[in-house]
This record gives sequence, structure tokens and C-alpha cells, in this order.
Amino acid sequence: MAHTVANKSKLIARVRRIKGQAEALERALEAEVGCTDVLMLVASLRGAVHGLSTEVVEDHIRNHVADPATDPDPARAKGAAELIEVIRTYLR
Amino acid sequence: MAHTVANKSKLIARVRRIKGQAEALERALEAEVGCTDVLMLVASLRGAVHGLSTEVVEDHIRNHVADPATDPDPARAKGAAELIEVIRTYLR
Amino acid sequence: MAHTVANKSKLIARVRRIKGQAEALERALEAEVGCTDVLMLVASLRGAVHGLSTEVVEDHIRNHVADPATDPDPARAKGAAELIEVIRTYLR
Amino acid sequence: MAHTVANKSKLIARVRRIKGQAEALERALEAEVGCTDVLMLVASLRGAVHGLSTEVVEDHIRNHVADPATDPDPARAKGAAELIEVIRTYLR
Repeated sequence: MAHTVANKSKLIARVRRIKGQAEALERALEAEVGCTDVLMLVASLRGAVHGLSTEVVEDHIRNHVADPATDPDPARAKGAAELIEVIRTYLR
Repeated sequence: MAHTVANKSKLIARVRRIKGQAEALERALEAEVGCTDVLMLVASLRGAVHGLSTEVVEDHIRNHVADPATDPDPARAKGAAELIEVIRTYLR
Repeated sequence: MAHTVANKSKLIARVRRIKGQAEALERALEAEVGCTDVLMLVASLRGAVHGLSTEVVEDHIRNHVADPATDPDPARAKGAAELIEVIRTYLR
Repeated sequence: MAHTVANKSKLIARVRRIKGQAEALERALEAEVGCTDVLMLVASLRGAVHGLSTEVVEDHIRNHVADPATDPDPARAKGAAELIEVIRTYLR
């Protein structure tokens, strides 16, 4: 089962943003900016990577396990919706 | 779909261990033990709660979404097995 | 250097709350409540333990490394304040 | 207090590795590799960013709060060493 094109573009956009954040961090380290700025850049890189993780796992659930929106089995659809909810809380 | 009795006992055993760890930590704080010991007790409580989280989520996947061992759809069984693997890595 | 009494009481109150949350979770598992409720109880236990971790580490910084409020060296006071800030972000 | 050059190079090397991992992930998404491979690439990116976070925070402690190896106050040196230890455990 392939990922939808929409999801693929969204994930690629997230990964490019992460690459851009890594580049900004590299420049900041080269320029020897203060430690406070480095800590802030790392914190936002960290947040972006956590956001990507959550989205990739969610995507996997919808495409390869069960999609709450389309699963014919209502119990499984509910279970998958709850799972996605809990993953969002835990992977923050 | 109810959780199996085996899983219920395992989860209760984990929760009791966590309660015991919280009690040990409470006594340590009352006794004003050194900060190093407090930090170690909190780290192990933290580890136990992460272990419980992973197990509860895994349990939810097997019982309410898809069980890799019994799902009649091989693609979904594989997707669920991979999901459990990734959850274990991410929720550590 | 001993922890202040105020901090000790605050930490003990947090640990007791965690013990209470573990007991509620144990009762919920015994009563075979639904998986959704279990997942929610575990998520709040997890949040409480993360909050405790952050507070214990912050406490350790203030009492055994450098207290931003009282350190005579202004550079170290600033460094400790930033450290506490970043710990709060990272240990959530 | 500026970061030492040795640390700067080590941090930049880590950030470049992260950038390389983000690029590999971008190519993998473009090439529509399987979800398993994407999940693995994201997990290793995540691990690399956590490693960077720990190192940046450790660096901040040594350079702007207290360095266990050189602090003239033995109690603070010990407190800083314990702090670094606990940060490594918690930020994994």
C-alpha cells in the first residue's frame, strides 16, 4: 500500500525544514554565536524532529495498519483513532 | 475486546512496582538522603513509567487495532509488527 | 548543602501524587476499565513523573551547582538560569 | 566565555551528520522507499538529534556553569559531574 502523494509532499517539506534548521545551526556554530542561541536552535531542531517522528508513525498507522477514517471495522477504526491520539501525546 | 488475563496481571505487577518505587522515593526524601540518591531513584521511576507506557500502547495495538500474531491480513500483521517495533524505539 | 525544607515538602507532595496516580491506575486495571481510560491514566502518570524529574534536576542545579538567584558570579548565575530554562524544555 | 575550538569542531561534525541524515531521508521519501526504511531513517535522525542535545547541554554546563574538571570548589565540581551524568540519562 503506497503513501498518498499529499502525505509524501508534507513529509518532504518537513524534512527540508529540518535540513534548513541544521544548516542554520551549522552557520551559528561556525560564527561562534552565544551558547543561548545555540541551545535555542537545538531545541527547535529537536521539536521539528519530534514532529516529523509523530507524523511518520501516524502515517504508518493509517497506511499500513488501520485508517480510522476508512476502516470497515468500527472497533478497529476506534482503536486506531485512540492510538494516533496517544502517540501524539507520547512522542511530543 | 477485553485485555487478556495474562496481560492484565503483567500490567498490574508493573504498576505495583512503580508504586513501590514512589514509596521508596518518598521515604528517601523524608530521610533527607543525598541528592545523588534522589536523582537515581527518580531516574529508575522514570524508566519504569516509560516501560509501562510502551507496554500499555503495545497492548492497545494488539487488542484494539491489529495483532501481528493473529491478524488474518498479512500486510496488516506486518504493519502492526513494525509499528510495535518503532514504538519500542521511540517511547524508551 | 541540604535541600531547603520548602523544596523537600514540594517534592514529597509530588511523589505522593504520583503514588496516588499509580494506585488509581492499579484499581482501574483491576476493574478492567476500557483501554482508553488506561491510556489516559498512564499518560497523566507519565506527565507527573516528567514534572518530578524536571523539578529534582532543577533543585540539584540550584543547591549543588549554582543558584541563579544567589550566585555571586553574574556569568555563572546567567549560565545556570539558561540551563534551568533549557532543562524545562528538554525534559518535558 | 567562548566555547573551546575542540568542542566547536565536534558539534559542527555532529550537525553535518544530521544534515546528511536529513538529506538521505529526503531522497528516501522522493524515491518512495518502503515505510519500514523511512521509520528507521527517522529513528536514527532522532537519535542523532538527541545525542547533539545532550552534548550541547553538557557543553553549556562545562563552559557557563561549572566544569567538574577545573572548578576550584570541590562541592560544585561534584554537583556538576552528577548533573552531567543525570542529563545523559534523561536526554537519551
